[in-house]
Amino acid sequence: MSTQISEATTNRLSVYLRCLNKLDAEGIRTVSSKVLADRFDLNAPQIRKDLAHFGELGVRGVGYYVKDLKRQLRQILGLDLHLKVAIMGAGNLGLALADYSGFRLEGFKIVALFDNLNEKIGQQSRAGVPIYDIKDLRRIAMREQIVIAVIAVPFSSAQEVVDKVVAAGIKAILNFSPEALRAPDKVKLKNVDLTVSLESLSFYLARGMGGNSV
Amino acid sequence: MSTQISEATTNRLSVYLRCLNKLDAEGIRTVSSKVLADRFDLNAPQIRKDLAHFGELGVRGVGYYVKDLKRQLRQILGLDLHLKVAIMGAGNLGLALADYSGFRLEGFKIVALFDNLNEKIGQQSRAGVPIYDIKDLRRIAMREQIVIAVIAVPFSSAQEVVDKVVAAGIKAILNFSPEALRAPDKVKLKNVDLTVSLESLSFYLARGMGGNSV
Repeated sequence: MSTQISEATTNRLSVYLRCLNKLDAEGIRTVSSKVLADRFDLNAPQIRKDLAHFGELGVRGVGYYVKDLKRQLRQILGLDLHLKVAIMGAGNLGLALADYSGFRLEGFKIVALFDNLNEKIGQQSRAGVPIYDIKDLRRIAMREQIVIAVIAVPFSSAQEVVDKVVAAGIKAILNFSPEALRAPDKVKLKNVDLTVSLESLSFYLARGMGGNSV
Repeated sequence: MSTQISEATTNRLSVYLRCLNKLDAEGIRTVSSKVLADRFDLNAPQIRKDLAHFGELGVRGVGYYVKDLKRQLRQILGLDLHLKVAIMGAGNLGLALADYSGFRLEGFKIVALFDNLNEKIGQQSRAGVPIYDIKDLRRIAMREQIVIAVIAVPFSSAQEVVDKVVAAGIKAILNFSPEALRAPDKVKLKNVDLTVSLESLSFYLARGMGGNSV
């Protein structure tokens, strides 16, 4: 019953939004928490509890209006703010993330890449995101109103880059390095673990293969 | 009560494994579903239900032995099979994924990259994953016993590459393209949406900023 919303809850809100996008694309206008749970293998009481944090989003006897709940979730998730994002590191991962169309589709604006290699600084990603000198991070973060930094540098320099991001006043960090990094409490640090998605496939293969060795 | 395990369930099993890794690293030996739920903001009845699919993993009055449950989950998720993975597309995203240390840490083996550009074929990623001609996919997939393909090509060619992967007999596909792709029922296709992680940060920023405009 706390008013603090956990990361697990916000992850679920994102999942609900994806489900609603699918229902909306199919032309479905209303949905109950039970139908949503059955269709996408979620937990109906948890859906109701998660959404109840944000007031009365459902309508008794109807459930949720798909388009309304989508709009409300986008607002709750801050997607209507069109937040500015910087990618730290213009290596393979950084360049791939800078041009990842999913971020733009949901309303994020990738405005800058940062690196410390002279041959990269002044260049841009294929989609046109400029690569700046990491020494200019603080100045450019203020000028461009950057509020999220994505860490896409090798682990050996990841903590150092996080410290620079924090010093530049950026308040939220997404970390793609598989190791844990430290940031002060006032900064929100989220780790992305790409392995989870691969594990879901290996589970399927391990079951499908039965007792066979591969 | 179905014996079919959904993707949502396998995703949760991966999350439980991450939590157990943390507890184990802290030297914690036993944990109940309630403590696990409280600590990581999960749902205790759901933990018990998810794990009950795989037999009696808990011990009455004790809960779960952390090391045992870790080992069991790794086995359930097929991580002890050390499955072979190919990355389709040796662009920025493909090269980044080929060298992503998280995959190796959990036991996956990235054995090949495939591309159709002459200047890439015959090269290798920084970590030494060889880049093959996509024309040789079938032959190399059989030779290397590749069972998972990761799609890291531009959307315009993604469906064509999926069709080639299916024709090569590969049974599981991880798609990093933000668009939906089609595969036959016998092939498991999973989509990765990197936007979910960014949304969790924008939620935090939207709340933290209160009524302030950015």
